[in-house]
Amino acid sequence: MILSSYQTSNPRYSVLLTDLYQLTMAYGYWKTGWHEKEAVFNLSFRKNPFNGGFSVACGLATVIDFLTQYVFQSEDIDYLKSLTGYDGSPLFQTDFLKYLRELKLVCDVDSFPEGVVVFPHEPLVRVQGPIIQCQLLETALLNIINFQSLIATKAARVCLAAGGDPVLEFGLRRAQGSDGGLTASRAAYIGGCAATSNILAGKCFGIPVRGTHAHSWIMAFENEQEAFRNYVAAMPNNCVFLVDTFDTLEGVKHAVGMGSILRETGHEMVGIRLDSGDLDCLSRQARRILDNEGFSKTIIMASNDLDEHSIDALKQREAPIGVWGVGTKLVTADGESALGGVYKLTAIRGRSGTWEYRVKLSEQTSKITIPGILQVRRFEKDGKFVGDLIYDEAMGMVGNQILVDPNDTNQRTKLPAGATFQDLLVPIMRKGQLVFESTAITQSRERVQQQLARFDSRFKRLTHSETYPVGLELELHKLRENLIQGGG
Amino acid sequence: MILSSYQTSNPRYSVLLTDLYQLTMAYGYWKTGWHEKEAVFNLSFRKNPFNGGFSVACGLATVIDFLTQYVFQSEDIDYLKSLTGYDGSPLFQTDFLKYLRELKLVCDVDSFPEGVVVFPHEPLVRVQGPIIQCQLLETALLNIINFQSLIATKAARVCLAAGGDPVLEFGLRRAQGSDGGLTASRAAYIGGCAATSNILAGKCFGIPVRGTHAHSWIMAFENEQEAFRNYVAAMPNNCVFLVDTFDTLEGVKHAVGMGSILRETGHEMVGIRLDSGDLDCLSRQARRILDNEGFSKTIIMASNDLDEHSIDALKQREAPIGVWGVGTKLVTADGESALGGVYKLTAIRGRSGTWEYRVKLSEQTSKITIPGILQVRRFEKDGKFVGDLIYDEAMGMVGNQILVDPNDTNQRTKLPAGATFQDLLVPIMRKGQLVFESTAITQSRERVQQQLARFDSRFKRLTHSETYPVGLELELHKLRENLIQGGG
Repeated sequence: MILSSYQTSNPRYSVLLTDLYQLTMAYGYWKTGWHEKEAVFNLSFRKNPFNGGFSVACGLATVIDFLTQYVFQSEDIDYLKSLTGYDGSPLFQTDFLKYLRELKLVCDVDSFPEGVVVFPHEPLVRVQGPIIQCQLLETALLNIINFQSLIATKAARVCLAAGGDPVLEFGLRRAQGSDGGLTASRAAYIGGCAATSNILAGKCFGIPVRGTHAHSWIMAFENEQEAFRNYVAAMPNNCVFLVDTFDTLEGVKHAVGMGSILRETGHEMVGIRLDSGDLDCLSRQARRILDNEGFSKTIIMASNDLDEHSIDALKQREAPIGVWGVGTKLVTADGESALGGVYKLTAIRGRSGTWEYRVKLSEQTSKITIPGILQVRRFEKDGKFVGDLIYDEAMGMVGNQILVDPNDTNQRTKLPAGATFQDLLVPIMRKGQLVFESTAITQSRERVQQQLARFDSRFKRLTHSETYPVGLELELHKLRENLIQGGG
Repeated sequence: MILSSYQTSNPRYSVLLTDLYQLTMAYGYWKTGWHEKEAVFNLSFRKNPFNGGFSVACGLATVIDFLTQYVFQSEDIDYLKSLTGYDGSPLFQTDFLKYLRELKLVCDVDSFPEGVVVFPHEPLVRVQGPIIQCQLLETALLNIINFQSLIATKAARVCLAAGGDPVLEFGLRRAQGSDGGLTASRAAYIGGCAATSNILAGKCFGIPVRGTHAHSWIMAFENEQEAFRNYVAAMPNNCVFLVDTFDTLEGVKHAVGMGSILRETGHEMVGIRLDSGDLDCLSRQARRILDNEGFSKTIIMASNDLDEHSIDALKQREAPIGVWGVGTKLVTADGESALGGVYKLTAIRGRSGTWEYRVKLSEQTSKITIPGILQVRRFEKDGKFVGDLIYDEAMGMVGNQILVDPNDTNQRTKLPAGATFQDLLVPIMRKGQLVFESTAITQSRERVQQQLARFDSRFKRLTHSETYPVGLELELHKLRENLIQGGG
């Protein structure tokens, strides 16, 4: 059974999964009478992780779980009632807590579908509605989207490095708690992994699971041969032998012996696994032994602290490894603490009913936000994506096709004539009601591959990749410049 | 209400939170008839994280949750029944699944209590029981202990750098999924943080929560003064003003104006918060403004991608910052992907009923395991800890007090005469029954501080710390040498 998402009644998606300041601000808006004022917030990030050239949007299914279960339960209210300010007096008035208890989401939410390739400055998620509701959703949206997009991006990079070889995700033991592991397995699968070792992820999300035995299996018996023999007797249909417990090449020879026994019973040794040492050298030696003994179809699987860079190096040297087990460095997104997504107010409905656009200033240009009710239009020509235009839905497209780089406004890219396009943000909720039909996780996974195939390889290098053109529509750029010059 | 731990009926602690190979090995042991053979496994790590000199044990409460709920539910069995081997035939026999459904833990578990300082090679958790059960527990134990100990260690380092100033944990939005965030808040609190922004962590664990407002609050109103004024009107008992939305020093002046208004109504401005720019320079300028205007008790809080190193640098320069907000780099354990804990078979009951000790060999000395039913004895003299002795409980202490460094066996430390000692592993479960009385999270937090106070400062430096003496008892060392020379 594949659950559409995690677990529907899971308290992990409590409305209290948020920062206290979201509640204190919500209280402030309520007290000020501004809480129903319509606002727009955009979730975006500033820089591709891992010094890479792209990112993969992931986490929407979890966001939908969170949004569709958004209710302050009475026990949540009881807890909030117990909180006090610095002088010991209650933080929240009872009337406000009553308001929260009755709160129903009425926001419009638009988002990139899972698996779409995304770039810095693009709004991955856009929330429009009463400012109090937009604000209350911030922390959970960031928590969910930041982590899953980071891991999906890492997985996509690892799978690119593996060049089509299956990559198995083995990270649970080094993941960040139980849900960190479960979530990482999900995002890694969407990013391109073929399977996981995490059985719960298999059960919850329908991800293929893989695994055979560990060093402890070998150590439990008198010697390696006895251990292999017992494994063969128990599971002849699942034999990948871990050969490096004592001496790797001896282990390969022992595996070959078992391979012959397996054949006698109509089974085939699937593979051997190397988990230490010089993987380049050992895989060649192992391949030679296997081939000489008539096991040319037996796959060599490698693991041991692998990531996209070590896999790439082994592939460059043409090490005869056919399956890659990747754990710690994938599920912890080694090399990048966090995607660093932010969620910023970009417009608020003024007294007259018109939109007032907002910009957050910063000494760092990359931290200055983009105002507006944003949408992203991706242009394609001759089967390749050629540029993404960020525009304001209220202003519309003014007809030009020039991208203005938000980090360096002198950098302008003209889109080629005759390019087709697609708008990337799609409606998820309207007035608090789900309007998006969730797709299977396998479709999200396929989407990553379909998307990546349409980006030129120069944007997909592991390091030193070129910057894919992403820019503001010219009128939006001018509006932003005016706001910046006006001091926000 | 403080829950004793997460949520008692939470599927996040499913028995399926494990790697598939644990189940295939379990099946193998069962098929081989070895499943009831008594074994001992130790959980340990090889290197202190963050290039530091110590680590903090954390996660036991969560482990206890997991162990006391350890049951294969019928839906788990249904899922396992659906799994197939490489040839498409079922992976597990029905009889084995029936065995799992009826399985009850009968293991003995010993562990470091939460908050105890721990070093490489020491067994944080020891499991003794039927090998099938020991094996099935591996992944979850590693997942839980690895992450929580890593974050508690990071928090302890950050708090040491802050030198007694309160450190607030603000990491939820950058944490690894919902439970990653919840777990990180718990471990950060035990490690020494004073409070969290994560309301759910406050509710679940009784951790103090803190927070006031964000940049979006300021941007929602016409200008900063209006925003501050509305905040004061709403929450006069919780005023820490974020002053850097537009111009930091102007923001400080606006905060001072609000401070005067607050005083008129009998309240006091608690603090201002700096979240960008040169924190050293800005905090001095802000302090001067505050002092000159009669707000010498107003605290300056700083945040912005802080960690132990940036806090240490600011403390060295005596920046007048009194409270530290730490987020991303704390909850993601920036600088270290994972603790890298491992869980190894160290002894198995032989045919004759005696223990056979096991060693996992490796070309890297630090990866060679320590055999035995291990215990750690910590020696103390004149109020300071002087060394930890790892010994085998079956062999006992043979009387000498020499520590043999397991990484370099020529390095031997003689413990001083007259040192007192304490054994660090305490009984958690006996024959599958909980025998440990869980302590409050506040006690675990205090334990960290009590422990750290008894380590000389040379072991607590953020970098280049000295190596605290940890070694094997001499007879255990000799036994290990014999096993290594004998090839395992």
